Order: sequence, then structure tokens, then C-alpha cells
Amino acid sequence: MGVVVQKFGGTSVGSVERIRRVAERVAAVHAQGKPCVVTVSAMGKTTDQLIELARQVSPRPPAREMDMLLTTGEQVSIALLAMALSELGVPARSLTGWQAGITTDGIHGKARIQEIDTRVIRECLDRGEVVIVAGFQGKTATGEITTLGRGGSDTTAVALAAALAAEVCEIYTDVTGVFTADPRVVPRAGKMDEISFEEMLELAHLGAAVLHPRSVECAMKHRVPLVVRSSFVDEPGTWVKEAKDMETERNVRGIAHDMHVARMKVLGLENRIETLSRLFGILADAHINVDMIVQSEHDAERVDVAFSVHEDEGEVAKGVIEAHREELGYLKVLYETGLAKVSAVGAGMVSRPGVAAKMFAALTDAGIRIKMVSTSEIKISCVIPRDRAVEAVRELHAAFGLDVTADEMAGAVTKGVG
Amino acid sequence: MGVVVQKFGGTSVGSVERIRRVAERVAAVHAQGKPCVVTVSAMGKTTDQLIELARQVSPRPPAREMDMLLTTGEQVSIALLAMALSELGVPARSLTGWQAGITTDGIHGKARIQEIDTRVIRECLDRGEVVIVAGFQGKTATGEITTLGRGGSDTTAVALAAALAAEVCEIYTDVTGVFTADPRVVPRAGKMDEISFEEMLELAHLGAAVLHPRSVECAMKHRVPLVVRSSFVDEPGTWVKEAKDMETERNVRGIAHDMHVARMKVLGLENRIETLSRLFGILADAHINVDMIVQSEHDAERVDVAFSVHEDEGEVAKGVIEAHREELGYLKVLYETGLAKVSAVGAGMVSRPGVAAKMFAALTDAGIRIKMVSTSEIKISCVIPRDRAVEAVRELHAAFGLDVTADEMAGAVTKGVG
Repeated sequence: MGVVVQKFGGTSVGSVERIRRVAERVAAVHAQGKPCVVTVSAMGKTTDQLIELARQVSPRPPAREMDMLLTTGEQVSIALLAMALSELGVPARSLTGWQAGITTDGIHGKARIQEIDTRVIRECLDRGEVVIVAGFQGKTATGEITTLGRGGSDTTAVALAAALAAEVCEIYTDVTGVFTADPRVVPRAGKMDEISFEEMLELAHLGAAVLHPRSVECAMKHRVPLVVRSSFVDEPGTWVKEAKDMETERNVRGIAHDMHVARMKVLGLENRIETLSRLFGILADAHINVDMIVQSEHDAERVDVAFSVHEDEGEVAKGVIEAHREELGYLKVLYETGLAKVSAVGAGMVSRPGVAAKMFAALTDAGIRIKMVSTSEIKISCVIPRDRAVEAVRELHAAFGLDVTADEMAGAVTKGVG
Repeated sequence: MGVVVQKFGGTSVGSVERIRRVAERVAAVHAQGKPCVVTVSAMGKTTDQLIELARQVSPRPPAREMDMLLTTGEQVSIALLAMALSELGVPARSLTGWQAGITTDGIHGKARIQEIDTRVIRECLDRGEVVIVAGFQGKTATGEITTLGRGGSDTTAVALAAALAAEVCEIYTDVTGVFTADPRVVPRAGKMDEISFEEMLELAHLGAAVLHPRSVECAMKHRVPLVVRSSFVDEPGTWVKEAKDMETERNVRGIAHDMHVARMKVLGLENRIETLSRLFGILADAHINVDMIVQSEHDAERVDVAFSVHEDEGEVAKGVIEAHREELGYLKVLYETGLAKVSAVGAGMVSRPGVAAKMFAALTDAGIRIKMVSTSEIKISCVIPRDRAVEAVRELHAAFGLDVTADEMAGAVTKGVG
């Protein structure tokens, strides 16, 4: 029988009472005789609290020691969930990342899973035990403890599902599925029954915050059947599947936003063939994820390059560029925070012209200044001032006809409660 | 150059500020060019908080999962101390029990160290790094996480010192050394400059709570030079050494007490040759540490056996005995809590008669009822009602001439502050 992999996020295990409810949900699957592997995050705000503790000790703690510190959060969760299952009479065994055979590369703070040796997990499943694996963590080949970065528990779950050829990977979270926009920002956002891997990937990258982008990549690559569901409400959730299996009737499927964007402008770079590759090579070496890139050529001698990064990495990126000033040969660096990114996403977009025009018009009509633009086959993103972002998301959601009607909303509420 | 092993208890790393002070102390040793291995406990009340969290999830959680949970406490401490050292510019590397090569048996909750593979530690020391090892924890040969039980960080430190043939093992704690009695109970208790391993072992076993008994055993066995010092006050501390190197001028060196004693009476056991070995064999199989044992023979057919255990294990011991009622063939079990044990300890005791008589007289004069007695070559212990224990310790401390004078106290205080 196929293995079921379930992942519960920090909110879902945020208290003893909630851990008990997760245990009941897992016990129900176990009672059906299904082999069950569960991945959990750290309880509630634990990770943030540990980060704050580290910050009090050192403004820039070594990444290796941050991993040592942060991995304790998930270890607490897995132990408590195993206890809760045991209290229900369900045999359960918790495993840290290294115990579960998860090997990663050595990039502390954002390691990538290289291999999962599933022998220990299989042995536990063969004995009829529920296996509870600490999300977000692994071990390098030389025995160092690593973390996969924020949202890494999703990646752990999907990677385990892939390695175990699971029949489904269920991601339990504090929302009932993937919405056309963040329902906290857009009251008229509606839940999607299904979404393609590609769309989900764009939404994940764009800060929709339901699934970690790497987990979507991994699911897409290994064709892992994935569903996002609520751990609090018994609803079908949103299936993430291959585009060819879907009916896409709308060109724009959702509006995503990311509230933590910083922009860097490197002005007056020498205009050589290797300029761009050298600049972004240096940033890649520092493990900085660059998002949008815009290049503008002044003349034969000089170019300006602007790019956006996550706000948390802005200072580091600036430092790295300043440290390589001589090598890069630029005139000036400008750094701007307080920005946000809003994006329209949809696999149907590629075949419908005018989406970009409609997006710019909506933002312009609202008097919102567009600072950067980038496009892909299935999305258009604009960087705008953060203090206008909420308004922008609502305007775009309405402009692309995504707002649900009052009747639909009433229906959704009834369904949610039932 | 000889390795220095330092151990800092939970109070010494109880806050970010205190962790910084520990880092400064370690940095001073590192600055002298000495290879330095540091063991730390969990911060302050962390372990108690984790136990409470587990209790909320399950009244009797599986021991394996308790170990999974509790080992996170030390992991947090080692990461933070490594960060604090790094902040001071001292290269440091934290290692969990399994990373440090500490292999234990599989008795979760009170595992014993079987072997320490010091290769990783040596590699770090060779690179000039301070090595910070999580106390209290290890790994079984099959990859399970274990804990050494309460006070196990002392054992970790001493075992590391033995494995590394360290020049000294320094135990930093919240007191300035080993006292003739608990200074919180006996204001006139004095600090000892030195104490024999054997005396320390008795004091440790008897609840003096400065060093874990197993750590003293381990130090005695491997001749590890051991010193107990304050992490807050710069004083010489108490050296624990071989008796032959000491001048013992007093027959009784200290009065210890243990406030958490439970007594079990098994009445009317069949009087057979194997009765005792069977009874205590069953308790040993359940990993219950029995302390004092008193047997009284009624007649040829029946015997009564009374024994004391730590209060925490009382209920389990009772359950085990009741579960084996048929096999043991007894009439009745009586269980009593609310007891304490007071003990007079001294290596000189063996050659001086009348110590026991003096002890009983002092307790009788104070109207304190003695419920059990046990003696060894270097100690006499009495179980008494807990509510009289503080009084008993003070009476005995005075009766054996251990009270320091007012002048000596004034001197100690000046020294403490200086």
C-alpha cells in the first residue's frame, strides 16, 4: 500500500492542544492501515524566538551555529508528537534529519537535500510505526547539522514523498488551500480547487507563502501528488498537479505579493561582455538569491544594473558588492528598502495578449508608481512602494475578474464551518 | 600541552549575559594557548520546562521520546556559547553528543557512556578551535539519542577529560566549592579546600548536589584531576583528589542531606534463600536505583524488607512490586513518602568509634525519629521525616564540630567578594 506523507506547519503544532489534534488526524490514517510518515515544523514562534536569542548573543552569528540552534525547534515538535501518538496507543517514532537519512550539501542556513537513505524509515514502517521526521534539517556527509532555510519543512515532506514513492503528500497549513490572493489582504479572494505546478511555483516564489518554492520544484520534478489542506477545517484543499490535467479558463489565476523587497542599483559598471556574469557570480558565491534583474545601457562604456533581493539579504548583498568594488569597476551603489512586489500569475497568460497592459493600467489608475518590471511566460511582476502594496493587490484582483461574489463567499463560509 | 576541560551548569549559562561571561572565561584559557573543551548544560530551567511540556502531552511519555525532547536543551546552549565565543574572535565549534563521538548504552533517560571516539574533538583542537560539547547526551551504537540522566553533564565533562587525558577537569557551578553541609540549610557550613574521591562520592550520592555521583566515580576510576569552582566568584574552589594525598584531621567531614526519599516496606515475604536477590533483581530490571535496604526476619517462614528509593521512582517501584506479587509471594506492601535522609560522611570515620552513637544521640536529643539506618566505612545515614530534616542537618553539623566561627565566616565573605 502506498505511503502517505503529511506535513504540519508551525501553526498546526503551535500548542499542546494542537499537537493532540494533529496526533488524532495522523492516528486516523494509521487506523486505515496506511504507512504514514509525518513531517513537522517547530512549534509556533519557536524559530523566531531562537533567532532573537542568537541575535542577543551576536549580531551576526556563524551560520553553522545558527543551524545547530534552530534545528532544536523541530526536534522538540517531533518528540511531542510522538508522545501524543503514543498516548493514543499508536506506535510512533520520531527521527531527526540525520536519523532519517537526509543528506544535504554544506550550505548552512539554506542547504539542499542531496540524498535520502530511507532504510531506517522503511524499517519503522515495516514494524507498523508512524514515522515522524523533523522538517527543515539534514546532515552533511561529514556529519554537520544543516537547515534547509525557511519553509524547508515543505521541502522535507516532498523529498520524503519522492524518495518513498508516496501515493500522496499532504501539506497541512493554517489556510484551507491556495487562494487567488492572500485572503488577509483581499477579502474577496477565492480558493482554487487545483493549480498547475508551474503556477504554484510562481506563486510560491512570489511570496504567496503557502508552499516553499523548492518543495514545489521537487514535487514537479518527481511528479509527487501534492495537496494543500487546512489542519483546522475539514475541506478538500487545493491539488497541485500537472498543467495538462487541468482546465484553465482564466488567463490570470492569482495575484501574489511579497512585502519584503529591497532593490539595489549598481551604477556605471564598465560595459564589458563579462560584467553581468561577474556581478551575479559574486552574489551567487555569497549565496544571495537575486530575484528581478534590469539592465540599462548608457553608452558603449557604462551600464547600470538594478536587481531585487529579499530584504533580509539586502545588507549582505550591498556589503558583497562594496567589497568587490575594484574588481567590478562601478561608480556608485544605491540601496532601497521599503518595497514590495505584486504579481499576476497564470499558465493561460502566454496565449493571451494584453495582460501586462491591463496590469500597468490598473496600477497607474490607482496612482501607484512602478519601480521595476519583470515577466515570464506565466507571470508579470511589478516592484512598487510597500505602503501601496495592499491596495495594489486588491485592485489587480478585481481588475482580472478574480473577486468572488457575495453569494460565493457565503457558500465558502458555510462549507468552511461544516 | 594538556587539555583543559571545563563544565558549566545550567545556572552558569542561565541567560545571554551569563553565557557571555562564560565565553570570556573560556576565551582567557584559549588566550593562554591551552586546548580547551567545554561542556555545558541546558540554560537555567529549560529542562524543567521541557519536562512540563511533555507532561502536558502525556502523563507517562516514552523514555526514548523524552531523550529526543530533552537533548534540545543542551543543543541550544552549545550553539549560543559558540556564537558568544565567535563574537569575541575565538574560533569555536559546538558538537552534539553524537557529533562528539559519545557512545552510550540504550537505557533511555539514564544511559551510561560506553566509549568516546575523540577523533572529531582532536581535529577541532588541532585547528586551534575551542570545542563545545553538549553535556548529558550521547548516541547508541544503533543511532538512538540518549541522555545520561540528571547531572549527566558532569559525567560528560569527566568522561571527556578521561578520554582526552586532560590536565584538569574544572566543574563550574553556582557555589564556590564543596561545603561541610548545604550553606542554604546550615549558615555555618564551611568550604573544604580538598576532599577525597570516596568522600565526594558519598556526598554526591547523598544529595549534596554539587557533583553527580557517576562523574565522581568516573573521575576516581580514571584519576582525573577534578576541581569544583564558582562560575561567578573568582575563588580557588575545592579539589577532589585521592585520599592518600590528604591530611584528614576530622572524623566527620560533612553533613549531607537528601530531601526526596520514599520508603517501601514489603511485608511477609517468603523466607527463602533467593528472596532478596529476586526482589532486587526485579527492581534492577526496571532500572530503579535502590538506596538503603533493611531486612528483618520474623520467623523461619516470613521476612520483612524495607528499602528507600528516590521519591521520583517510588510509584514505579511500587507498581513493579505489585505486578510481581505472585512471583515474590509477599503479604503486603507499604509505601511512605515525605521522608529525607541525613548523613555524616568522613574517610576518617572508619578508625574512630562512637560516630554512630554521637549521631543517634544528637537526633534523639532533638526529638527526631529515626526510621531507617545504614552505614558504610565512611558514612552513616538516617532516614527521618522530611519536615525535621533542616533541623537535623544543623544539629549534626554542630555536634560534629563543623560549624565555622564568626571570624572564619567574616574571612570567607571577604574572600568571596575579593
